[in-house]
Amino acid sequence: MNHQQNLTAYLHAFISSLANSGVEQAVISPGSRSTPISLLLAEEEKINVHVHVDERSAAFFALGMAKMSKKPTILVCTSGTAAANYFPAIVEAKISRIPLIIITADRPHELRDVGAPQAIDQINLYGNHVKWFMEMSTPEGSPGMIRYVKTVGARAVSTAIQHPSGPVHLNVPIREPLLPDLEHIADYQEKDLERSILHFETGMPVIEDNYFESLATIIGHTKKGIIVCGEIDKPGFSSMIRKLADATGYPILADPLSNLRSDQEDASKIVDTYDTFLRNERIKSQLKPEIIIRFGSMPISKPLTIFLRENEQAEQIVIDGGSGYRDPNQLTSKMVYCDEVYFCKKLSECISDCSVNHYFNTWIKINSLTKEELKKVNDIEGLSESKLFKKLGEVIPNNAVLFVGNSMPIRDLDTFFHQLDKKVTIIANRGANGIDGTISTALGVGVINKPVFLIVGDLTFFHDLNGLMIAKQYNIPITIIVINNNGGGIFSFLPQAELPRHFELLFGTPLNLDFKDLITMYKGEYELITNWEHLMELFTQTDFSNGLRVWELQTNREDNLLEHRSIMKDVSFVLDEFAEGDQGVS
Amino acid sequence: MNHQQNLTAYLHAFISSLANSGVEQAVISPGSRSTPISLLLAEEEKINVHVHVDERSAAFFALGMAKMSKKPTILVCTSGTAAANYFPAIVEAKISRIPLIIITADRPHELRDVGAPQAIDQINLYGNHVKWFMEMSTPEGSPGMIRYVKTVGARAVSTAIQHPSGPVHLNVPIREPLLPDLEHIADYQEKDLERSILHFETGMPVIEDNYFESLATIIGHTKKGIIVCGEIDKPGFSSMIRKLADATGYPILADPLSNLRSDQEDASKIVDTYDTFLRNERIKSQLKPEIIIRFGSMPISKPLTIFLRENEQAEQIVIDGGSGYRDPNQLTSKMVYCDEVYFCKKLSECISDCSVNHYFNTWIKINSLTKEELKKVNDIEGLSESKLFKKLGEVIPNNAVLFVGNSMPIRDLDTFFHQLDKKVTIIANRGANGIDGTISTALGVGVINKPVFLIVGDLTFFHDLNGLMIAKQYNIPITIIVINNNGGGIFSFLPQAELPRHFELLFGTPLNLDFKDLITMYKGEYELITNWEHLMELFTQTDFSNGLRVWELQTNREDNLLEHRSIMKDVSFVLDEFAEGDQGVS
Repeated sequence: MNHQQNLTAYLHAFISSLANSGVEQAVISPGSRSTPISLLLAEEEKINVHVHVDERSAAFFALGMAKMSKKPTILVCTSGTAAANYFPAIVEAKISRIPLIIITADRPHELRDVGAPQAIDQINLYGNHVKWFMEMSTPEGSPGMIRYVKTVGARAVSTAIQHPSGPVHLNVPIREPLLPDLEHIADYQEKDLERSILHFETGMPVIEDNYFESLATIIGHTKKGIIVCGEIDKPGFSSMIRKLADATGYPILADPLSNLRSDQEDASKIVDTYDTFLRNERIKSQLKPEIIIRFGSMPISKPLTIFLRENEQAEQIVIDGGSGYRDPNQLTSKMVYCDEVYFCKKLSECISDCSVNHYFNTWIKINSLTKEELKKVNDIEGLSESKLFKKLGEVIPNNAVLFVGNSMPIRDLDTFFHQLDKKVTIIANRGANGIDGTISTALGVGVINKPVFLIVGDLTFFHDLNGLMIAKQYNIPITIIVINNNGGGIFSFLPQAELPRHFELLFGTPLNLDFKDLITMYKGEYELITNWEHLMELFTQTDFSNGLRVWELQTNREDNLLEHRSIMKDVSFVLDEFAEGDQGVS
Repeated sequence: MNHQQNLTAYLHAFISSLANSGVEQAVISPGSRSTPISLLLAEEEKINVHVHVDERSAAFFALGMAKMSKKPTILVCTSGTAAANYFPAIVEAKISRIPLIIITADRPHELRDVGAPQAIDQINLYGNHVKWFMEMSTPEGSPGMIRYVKTVGARAVSTAIQHPSGPVHLNVPIREPLLPDLEHIADYQEKDLERSILHFETGMPVIEDNYFESLATIIGHTKKGIIVCGEIDKPGFSSMIRKLADATGYPILADPLSNLRSDQEDASKIVDTYDTFLRNERIKSQLKPEIIIRFGSMPISKPLTIFLRENEQAEQIVIDGGSGYRDPNQLTSKMVYCDEVYFCKKLSECISDCSVNHYFNTWIKINSLTKEELKKVNDIEGLSESKLFKKLGEVIPNNAVLFVGNSMPIRDLDTFFHQLDKKVTIIANRGANGIDGTISTALGVGVINKPVFLIVGDLTFFHDLNGLMIAKQYNIPITIIVINNNGGGIFSFLPQAELPRHFELLFGTPLNLDFKDLITMYKGEYELITNWEHLMELFTQTDFSNGLRVWELQTNREDNLLEHRSIMKDVSFVLDEFAEGDQGVS
C-alpha cells in the first residue's frame, strides 16, 4: 500500500465506524491539514455535512444539533488556533452533558514544537473539559491499524453518549500529501462493509428494590414534600414524574427547562410561578418542606435556590442518572445515582396511601393566585420585557422550539412563561450559562426541529453575530426576537447599579448598534416592533417554515428595572394578604 | 477588617502591583464575578481601560497592544465560558511570544463543581499554552496576604515579559458580596504607596567570548554564507544585523516580518525577492550555501524553507534569545541561545578580513533581476491581488503600520512587497498562523501606533467581524483593505484544487456577503475599489488619522491562480537565462 492508500483506508474505516455507530451530522471548518477527513466525510452518505468558516460558531452549531437530536455531532477542523476556537462550546457541552466528537487534524510528530506553520500543542488541548482524549496514530492501512481505528470511532461515539453524555476529542496527525484516493472510493467502501462492527450496549444505573421500599416508607410518613425538576431531557420522564407526583401527593416545581410547563396531560400538580412567590418571606415560612426530591440540573430561579438553601431541616434527595454532584447549596442528604425514569417508576410503585393534603393545596393555591396576579403584566401598554414573555406563551405556534438566551431572557421566561396547552420545547445553554454561541446553538437545534424561535438580549445577539452565516448558507428557518435595551440589562439588578462610578463603562456597556443593516447582509427580514399589535400581527401572518427573521424590540434598562420591581411589589402585596388569611385558617 | 475591606485591600494591592510593574493597558469584558477587579482597574490611573463584550476579540485586541508596545496587556473576564473565549489569542500569544496577563474571576472553592451557575473548571484552563498559571487565594487583607498578592502581581509581569515572552494566567476566586469599597479608595491608595515594591531585573542570555572567536574563524574560512531573518522585534537589531552582514560579507534574506525591508540606512545587502527566485531549480543550484546564520522565527516563504531543507550540507546556525527550537527542517547544527543583538555585535567584532565575493554578488544580482521582473505586475490593468501588494509599497504613508492577514495576503506581501525608503512596520499573527482575531489584533496595534492599515482576505475579515466594534467604540483609526475573492483563495494553490468533487463546499467556501451594510452598522466608511486610479486617489485624499474605513477589492480566485502562475513563469524564464549566462562566467 502506498501513502495515499494507507491514508484512505485508515480514515475511511474511521469515518464509516462513526457513521455505523449512529452519527448523522458533521460540521466542518475549512482547512488544509484536515483535507482527507473532510473529503471522506463529504463522501459518507450516512452523514450530513455542514461547513462553517468560524469555528467558534461551528462548535455551538454542532452543540445545538446534538442537544436536540441527543446524538453526537462531529466537528472537524484543521490544526492550529482553529481548534482553540471550539473551546467555549466544548466547555458548555461538558457541563450540560451534550455528546460531541471533536476531530482535530494535526501535524505529524516531526512537525510539532519545531516552529512549523499552524502547529500548536493539541495534546489534551481541552484539558478535563472533554470526557475522553485520544491522540491517534498516523494513518496506516494494515489490518491491525484498521481494527484500531474502527474501534476508536465506535468508542468515541459510545463514550460521548454514555451518561453523563459529553464531548470527546480525537487528535489525528496526518502527513502530506493530504489527498485521499477518491477515485477508488467504492473499493474502500466495499472492504469496510466486509468488516465486523463494534456495537456498544450500555446499561443504565439502577438501585436495588429494597432502597425504594425504605424510601417509600419515609415518604409515607412525610406530608410536606415537594418535587423539584430542573433541566432534564429524557424520553418518558415527563409522564413518569407525574406518576410520582400522583403517588406521593407532592407538587412538582417545574423549571422551564424541565419542559413540564407545556403539553401536559394533567398539569394539576405543576407549580410554575414559584420564582415569584418564593420571594415572599411569609409565604416561604408557610411552605417549609420536610422532604425535597430533586431531578435534573439546578433550577434557574434564584428564589428557589435560596428556598432550598433555607430549608436545611428538609431531607433533600437528588436523583442523577449522570452521577454528578449538582447542588451549590450542599444540602443534599441522599444523592441517588439512578436512571431518573426508572427511579420515578419504581418509587411510585412502592408508595401506597398518599394523597394530596393541605400542604399540597397551599402550594397550588398560591401558584394560582400568583399566576392570576402576573397576568396583569398584560395591561402594560408600552413595549415591555416582562409582557413579552407572557405574550410569547399565547402566540408561539404549537410544536415550536423556543431557544432562550442567558442573562435576563431565561430569568424573565422563568417568571412570566407558564403552563401551556400546546407543546413548546424550551431550550437554553445552561451548562455554563454563557452569552456566547447562542445564535449558533439555536440554529443547530433548528436543523433537527423546525420551526425554532430564539429570544435574546442585544449583547448575547452581538456575541454570536457570525452565527447568522449558517442561517443564510443553509437556509435554516429561524425567528429571532432581540430585546434591545442597549447593553447589559441584568447589571441594573445587581448591587453595582447603586454605584454610578464606571457603571455604564464596565456594566451597562451600550453597543449603540442598528442591527437592521446587518440583517440585510445575511439576507434576513428585519422588523422593528413598534407596538403589541404589530408583534401579534407578525405572529399570525408569518410563515415560520422558511427564512431568517429578526424582530427587534427596543426597551429601556432603567424602565425595565422599575417595572420588574413594581410587578413584584404588587404580587407581594396580594401574597401577604393570602398568607395572613391562610395562617388564620390552618 | 470586614469582607469589603479585605476584598478591596487585597485587590487594590494586586492591581497597583501590576501598574507599578509597568502594565499600561487592560481590556475588560463585562461580567458579574469580576466586578471588584474591573472597578479597581477603572480606578487605577496608570492603566488605560478598554471594554469589549466579545472575549475572543478582546483577547486578540489585547494581543495587538502587547505586540506593538512590547508591554503586557491585562485581560479581565468573569467566570465561565467567557474565559474559554480567550483561548485562541492565548495560543497565538504563547507561540509568538507576546506578553499577556489573563485575570479570570472565579467562584470560590465551595461553589466549584457543584452545579453553581457560570462555574467551570478554570484551574489550568489553558494547559501549557500559558507560561505560568496561579490559582490565587480568596481575598484577604492581612499583611501576609497583601505581601503575597503584590508579589504575584510583580511576578506575573516579570514572567510575561521574560524571554521568551508569553501569556500568564491568574485565576482569582471571589466571594459575594462583590462590591469594593470605592468610597474610601484614597485610603487604600495611600497604604499601597507606603509599601515596598518588588522590582525584577532579568539578565539576557549571553555566550562566552571564545565561542564567538571560534565562530569567527569558521566564517573566515567560509565564502558561501547567508543570513536569514524571520520575524524578530528587538530594539537595535536592525542596525546590528547589518553590521554582521558587513563583517561577514553575507547577504541578508529578509522576511517581511524582520522589518528589514524598509527604512534601512544601507539596504545593499538585503535580499527581498528570494520567495520568487528560490522556486527556480537552476538558480538554487548556483546558490548552495556552506553556512546559514538564522535569526527570528521561521520565514514565511515556502521556497526559502525548502531551500534550507535542501542544503543539508550547510552548517545551519540558529540564534534564539528566547531559547526555543524553531526549525521544522531539523537541520540546525548549532542552536545558540544568546541575545540576538549581543550575538551580532560580538560576532561582528571578532571577524576580520571578510568582504563581499562572487557568491554574495550572485545573490544580489539575482535579487535585482527578479525585482525588476516583478515590477511588471504594475502593467496588469484589472484589479489583481499581486499588483495590490506591489502598489501598496508605493502609496502607503511613511511611519504606517501594515498588519497583514494570514493565508494569501502575507504570502503575496512576501512576494511583491520590496525594499522601501520610508518606514513601514509590517506585523502579522504568525505564531499559529490562524485567520482568527485579525481585525482585533490590528486594532490593538492601532492603539499604540497610528495609523494602522490592515490587509485581509474575505474569510479572515469575516472570522473577526465582531472586532470592528472596538473601532467604533473607541474611535481607533484603521484602514482595512479587504481582498474579496469570495472564499478561500489559498486552496486554489493546493492539490485538492485538482479534485473538483466537494471543492467549493469544503475549500472554496464562498460567503456571498455584501460587507457594505455591515460597515454602515459600525459607522465606518465603505468603498468598493473600481480600478487602480480609484485606489490611488483614495490613498492620496484620505485623512488616515481618524475613523474606520473599509476598502473592498473584488477579485476572482481562478484568475488569481492563473495570474500568479503566469508571473512566476515569466520570471523563471528570465532566471533560467541568467543561470545559463552566469554559469558560463563563474
